[in-house]
Order: sequence, then C-alpha cells, then structure tokens
Amino acid sequence: MCQLLGMNCNTPTDICFSFEGFALRGGLTGEHRDGWGISFFEQNACRSFHDTLPAAESDIAKLISNYPIKALNVISHIRKATIGKIELRNTQPYNRELWGQEWVYAHNGDLWDYEFTESRPSRPIGSSDSEATFCDLLNLLRNKFPEEMPAIAILAKTVEEFARKVSNYGTFNFLLSNGVYLFAHCSTKLCYIIREAPFKEAHLRDKDLSINFSQVTTNQDKVAVVATEPLTDNEVWTYFEKDQLLVFKNGEVLDFV
Amino acid sequence: MCQLLGMNCNTPTDICFSFEGFALRGGLTGEHRDGWGISFFEQNACRSFHDTLPAAESDIAKLISNYPIKALNVISHIRKATIGKIELRNTQPYNRELWGQEWVYAHNGDLWDYEFTESRPSRPIGSSDSEATFCDLLNLLRNKFPEEMPAIAILAKTVEEFARKVSNYGTFNFLLSNGVYLFAHCSTKLCYIIREAPFKEAHLRDKDLSINFSQVTTNQDKVAVVATEPLTDNEVWTYFEKDQLLVFKNGEVLDFV
Repeated sequence: MCQLLGMNCNTPTDICFSFEGFALRGGLTGEHRDGWGISFFEQNACRSFHDTLPAAESDIAKLISNYPIKALNVISHIRKATIGKIELRNTQPYNRELWGQEWVYAHNGDLWDYEFTESRPSRPIGSSDSEATFCDLLNLLRNKFPEEMPAIAILAKTVEEFARKVSNYGTFNFLLSNGVYLFAHCSTKLCYIIREAPFKEAHLRDKDLSINFSQVTTNQDKVAVVATEPLTDNEVWTYFEKDQLLVFKNGEVLDFV
Repeated sequence: MCQLLGMNCNTPTDICFSFEGFALRGGLTGEHRDGWGISFFEQNACRSFHDTLPAAESDIAKLISNYPIKALNVISHIRKATIGKIELRNTQPYNRELWGQEWVYAHNGDLWDYEFTESRPSRPIGSSDSEATFCDLLNLLRNKFPEEMPAIAILAKTVEEFARKVSNYGTFNFLLSNGVYLFAHCSTKLCYIIREAPFKEAHLRDKDLSINFSQVTTNQDKVAVVATEPLTDNEVWTYFEKDQLLVFKNGEVLDFV
C-alpha cells in the first residue's frame, strides 16, 4: 500500500510544510520505503521528481522539503511495493499528455486481478496495476472525447464511472490533475482540509513542527490539501465517504458531483 | 539557441563531471539563461529535472552536479529562449510514451516557419517549435509502426528522413533516446567523444576542474558523450558532419547508418 498527498490552491503555494511531514512516512514514521515522487504544476505543464530511495532518506526529498516550489496543483506519492518491483518505472506519480495538457496520476491500493485492457494509444511503461488503470482511463477519455476536454461535470461523471468499475478489483484511492482540477477518489481512505482566512497555526503529526499560516498567506488564499491520513494533529480534517469522487478547483470543492 | 548534452554508456555511469561544466554555460560561461532540464534513464523509464532558472544559479542543478545518479542514457538541455516564452512547458527535454517505452527529446536550433501538422495523438503542451517537431515525429512513428518498435536500422532511416524534411525549416540539431539507443542529429553543430580504456585525465573547458577517469571506471566501460561544443580542453572530440544522424548503443556508434 501507499500514501497519497495532493494540493489544489487559488494562488501559487509551496508544499514544503506538508511534504516534510508526509516524507517522514516514507521509512521513518511509516513503512512506505519503496520510492516516492512528486509533481508540481506550473500552468498546464508540470515538473516531477522521483526517487527509488525511501523519502525519509532521499537527498532529492530533502531538496523538495527546503526548496519552495510554488504551484496551484501538486500530487505526491510514497510507495510500499506490493504489485510491481521497486524500480523507477513503477514509481508514481505517472504523467501523460492528453488534449495538449499534462495529466498526472497517483494511485493507492491493490487491484490484484486488474489487467491492462490493451486499449490504445497509451500503454504502461512499468508493471504496476496503477499505471495500467491510468492508461485505460486516458484511452477511455481520448476515445470518448477525441478532440477536446469536455465540460468538467461531464468529465467528472466519466471518471466516476471508470472508478466505480475499477473499484470492483480492489482498493482504488487516487489523485488526478491537469494543473487546473484535482480529482480525488476514495475507495477506502482519504481525507482533506481547506485552509482559508482566518489562517491559524498547524502542527505536524509526524514531526514536532508548526507553521503559522497567517504569516505566509493573504486573506484571499484558499488551499485544499488531500491526504491518505491527516498530516496535522490540531486541525479538523474531513474524511471522504467510500466511493466518493471530489473535484477541487481554486482550493474549493466543486459542487456538481 | 540552446546547448545539448547527451550520454550513452554500456555500464551505468554518472554525469556529474560533464554536467558541472555544461551547467556553467547556463548563465556563467554561456548565455543560455532561460531554463534547463536533464533526463536520466533507468531501464525503459526515466526521471527528469527541469528548472526555469539559469542552470548556473539553480539549486536543482547544484543537486545534479553533486548527486551521482547512474544511468545508461542521459539527455540534457540548456536554453536561450527564441521561439516560445520562458515557461516550464517550454523547458526541455520533453518526454512522451511510445510503444510502452519512454522517449526523451531535446532540440537545439530555430525552425521559424515550422508549424505542428495537427497530427495525432501526441499534441504539444507548450508553444515551442521543438515540441511541435517531437510530437510530429512520434505521431509519424506510431502511424508507421503502430504496434512495436521496428528494427533499429529501419527506425533510424525513418528518423533520418524526418530530420531531412524538418531541416528545410532551419537548424535541427537534436538528441532522442528510449533508454537503449541515443539518436543524435547534427544540422549545424554537434560533437562527440567515446571514452574507453585506457582511461585518462580530462579537464573541463568551463571550469578549472579535472577528473582521472581511470580511477572511477573498469576496463570494460564505454561512455559516449555528445555535446553542442566540446566539454573538455585536453581530449579529441569528433565533430558531426552536416545533416548526419548517429545512433549510439552501449557507448558505441552503430555502423548501419
């Protein structure tokens, strides 16, 4: 199993504080030692960092904790390998281009009998169940909407139907983003928090570290953070319902779903 | 204009020494201040680092210079923006999946009148002439060889024909790799060196720094390095001919082209 972390904001925000706690679960406060990755969107492009070392021991993870890359959307993943060896090609998040946009995806859970449907054109590079579902989803979307991304409500419905089908194979918690929207699907475990004015102090669960968000934000800022388990111990996180898909934009949950 | 750096080896090798000299051209010994990127292959997957800051001043570039990531194939690019703004989406190398393999591409040169042919399914995310050519090449290859990568000689011939056509629009020096082969095409300026036993000392052109490769290699190692301009001043680099495509594998030039 793995852990997921996502962020969606209305103003470019760095994820240093959340990532510092999250990364410790990669081998120190958690057992997710088998690699990690993070993708930061800037407009419709993104840059990703991947490592097969445990996040808690990785020099690249240390850089990310200390280097404030500001982004509207971020997806991160730390891995405990179950299906697929510990190799770079099985290290999430995955990314592919669709409709001239970069799409980033990370999955938590085991889908033991799930097999890639051999749909085209996207094909898995690695051997994980997660990448197989990502390619199938992309091919489904491309076939259904060949030229352009449809209206977000229609897209969300298609993603939700796909999620329901795949959930029959096992656990299917995932995050998906194109740099504008953050899709978050819960099959077993996922929670979120929306931070907005008045901002307060937050304290990490995985490390004795606090930040006073009121000192680093403006009154207009809205920042949604999604994670497998709450990252702080003095804030109220909202748990997803089973089989719930939420779509975030500008730090808010869209209400059409 | 930009500068290119590529490496192709028969044993996983780090690129720290070459990259240290190369990165200085990104704003210190060269004028290529408008972002940079590097992709390291591990098997058929790769990890990339991109930054819109000058390589000579980038914290991420410092990490790459000091952190020995070993790879059989590496492609790096430093940019002086001409076509396309300074944005992450215009920062090379670009990557896309084809035949279940990751393909990485970087281009040096201006193709002023080149326009994306609207071929499918790959589409540019950014606005550079370089990414347009990459998408057109991938779509050509996918249409011509829909299911699998053809024999390397046939693939090289197709890439060469494409390069000849695009060269009519301007300067088309590029590097392309799938983690096994490194394709290098010269339209105006590109050179390479193959380092093998007996290994000697090399001295950077862009910094007073030497390395004695005999201390960090075995007798079987073969390392080909391709660059826009020689990276060292005490070794003999071979210049490509105009419109020449070379394909490297295991640190050697394949001789079918």
